[in-house]
Amino acid sequence: MGKYIYGIDLGGTTAKLGLLSEEGRLFEKWEIPTRIENFGKNILPDLAKEIKKSMAENFLNQDDIIGVGLAVPGAVTNEVSVAKCVNLNGWGGDNVAESFSKLIDLPVKIINDANAAALGEAWQGGGKGYKNLVFVTLGTGVGGGIILDGKLLTGSHGAAGEIGHMKLYPEYFETGVGDGDFSSGKTLDVCPISSFGGFGEKEKCGCGKKGCTEQYASATGIVRTAREMGMTDNDSKFGFLSAKDVFDKAKEGNKTALAVAHKFAEDLGRSLASVSAIVDPEIFVIGGGVSKAGQLIIDMVLPYFLKYAFPASESTEFSLAKLENDAGFYGAAKLMII
Amino acid sequence: MGKYIYGIDLGGTTAKLGLLSEEGRLFEKWEIPTRIENFGKNILPDLAKEIKKSMAENFLNQDDIIGVGLAVPGAVTNEVSVAKCVNLNGWGGDNVAESFSKLIDLPVKIINDANAAALGEAWQGGGKGYKNLVFVTLGTGVGGGIILDGKLLTGSHGAAGEIGHMKLYPEYFETGVGDGDFSSGKTLDVCPISSFGGFGEKEKCGCGKKGCTEQYASATGIVRTAREMGMTDNDSKFGFLSAKDVFDKAKEGNKTALAVAHKFAEDLGRSLASVSAIVDPEIFVIGGGVSKAGQLIIDMVLPYFLKYAFPASESTEFSLAKLENDAGFYGAAKLMII
Repeated sequence: MGKYIYGIDLGGTTAKLGLLSEEGRLFEKWEIPTRIENFGKNILPDLAKEIKKSMAENFLNQDDIIGVGLAVPGAVTNEVSVAKCVNLNGWGGDNVAESFSKLIDLPVKIINDANAAALGEAWQGGGKGYKNLVFVTLGTGVGGGIILDGKLLTGSHGAAGEIGHMKLYPEYFETGVGDGDFSSGKTLDVCPISSFGGFGEKEKCGCGKKGCTEQYASATGIVRTAREMGMTDNDSKFGFLSAKDVFDKAKEGNKTALAVAHKFAEDLGRSLASVSAIVDPEIFVIGGGVSKAGQLIIDMVLPYFLKYAFPASESTEFSLAKLENDAGFYGAAKLMII
Repeated sequence: MGKYIYGIDLGGTTAKLGLLSEEGRLFEKWEIPTRIENFGKNILPDLAKEIKKSMAENFLNQDDIIGVGLAVPGAVTNEVSVAKCVNLNGWGGDNVAESFSKLIDLPVKIINDANAAALGEAWQGGGKGYKNLVFVTLGTGVGGGIILDGKLLTGSHGAAGEIGHMKLYPEYFETGVGDGDFSSGKTLDVCPISSFGGFGEKEKCGCGKKGCTEQYASATGIVRTAREMGMTDNDSKFGFLSAKDVFDKAKEGNKTALAVAHKFAEDLGRSLASVSAIVDPEIFVIGGGVSKAGQLIIDMVLPYFLKYAFPASESTEFSLAKLENDAGFYGAAKLMII
């Protein structure tokens, strides 16, 4: 008989838990509230109680369980320690894996939640069957996860897969022709449609810089473009313009919404073409809130990807993420058997 | 006693050969002309003769040699077969490794020459001691090689590390605001300084597309920018403007040359910042003809890299390539002991 794995996706509001087989079959999933008060001192005991209860209910012994993978909303080092998590009231520490392991008497490994989602989609989601893939989440920001030869690429400074922070546009042009003045900060408004085109961004990206893919391809970025191109809250069914409104209006043939959608698609397509020129994956898996617009996203982005992709990479495939909110615990579980 | 390896870098004009220890110590190097006539039928016999002669002269037996790594100027599959090489009169084939191995009675592995150079620089050159690095060659084109955990990343379609074909600029903007016409090929001149800024490139890149890093950061691209900004052959000591002339003039304080050099540095710095956001290497190693301008290149590119890099990657190091024309045979040799 095969063995079992628990995967947990610990979020700021709830923790999602799943019991899976080694082959990735899901037996049960459930969620509990995350109690973040007192610097999160209840977090691990609460999760331990749930694991023990599930084991008892399913007549599982320690020998039946490979271990527990835990995805957390923060930076993780060596699958063991967790930097203080902003969304968990500063919870974290150097010995999270050890502490949790003692409570449940099972092996524990820890992973960042975005990376877990990538691993989950690669294992049982939109990237199932592929060994080299890039997972892109289009939400409030633009996140990513790169799987090469079945393993997650984390990078030398934990920054691999930060697709949202690839720089699509220069912050400004140094002009200086003839005057030799390259003093930093000098800006020239080169284009009449400056911020639409990517120049003279008024707001910095969350990373503190400008020109990021996230500024254009995130839900936030799409709405910003839409407002700059003349859409308003009056274009929303709910009185507050969202990326969904833009795609809904585009589907209805609204010309401004179509222009916004094409601008998004060209920016994302060009970014992913550059990703292909670096790591050349077999497939891109697109997830996150914006991907709920469905096949339309792929249908719009693919022609722009082809316009910019290095010819050898033109056959790269595209799929939508499939596991939605379950991707994190799937990936956390997978971590135990890589 | 340690064992020995031969590395060969087969080029269109000459083949460079090296005899190295397992530790990367070079015992001898030499070169022979490449005879490409008759579809290159003399290529392997000529190389075999050289290997046998060197073994005899150095009193080496088969048992002393780990094998021979061969770098070729074309696409390589599975370290065994070579696609027809344009520079070698169509030489290539499915069984190059086997044929060569029979001639010399030693194990043979084959590698693309750009990848070999990356591996060589990682082993004994500018990237020595690093396991995660990106090698960038700035020559007629812009090439690259990515080493992750000591191994070369080749990609799902052989296109990994094609840094020169990352897309720095959009080919053109779809405008269409208000008219809904997104028919492909529609171009709008949005900027008065169009081709300087990266818009409305007049010439396509070698890959057939536009907006590539190679269009701006190669020696060819630098000269193109220089001509667009007003430099002419009169600015060259040799009567024909080159990238070297631009950097020489910039060192002398020529303002136009400085502007061109800054444009190059900002474009390359932004590209490498995006590479960091994808694979997050420990170090960038810069080689190729343009890198002969020396430390100036790094001094100019680094501030722009920092301007665009994701904060976690800001501590990424930069170095110049060290092995020059020997990088290829070093890397080919290294292939035998990875």
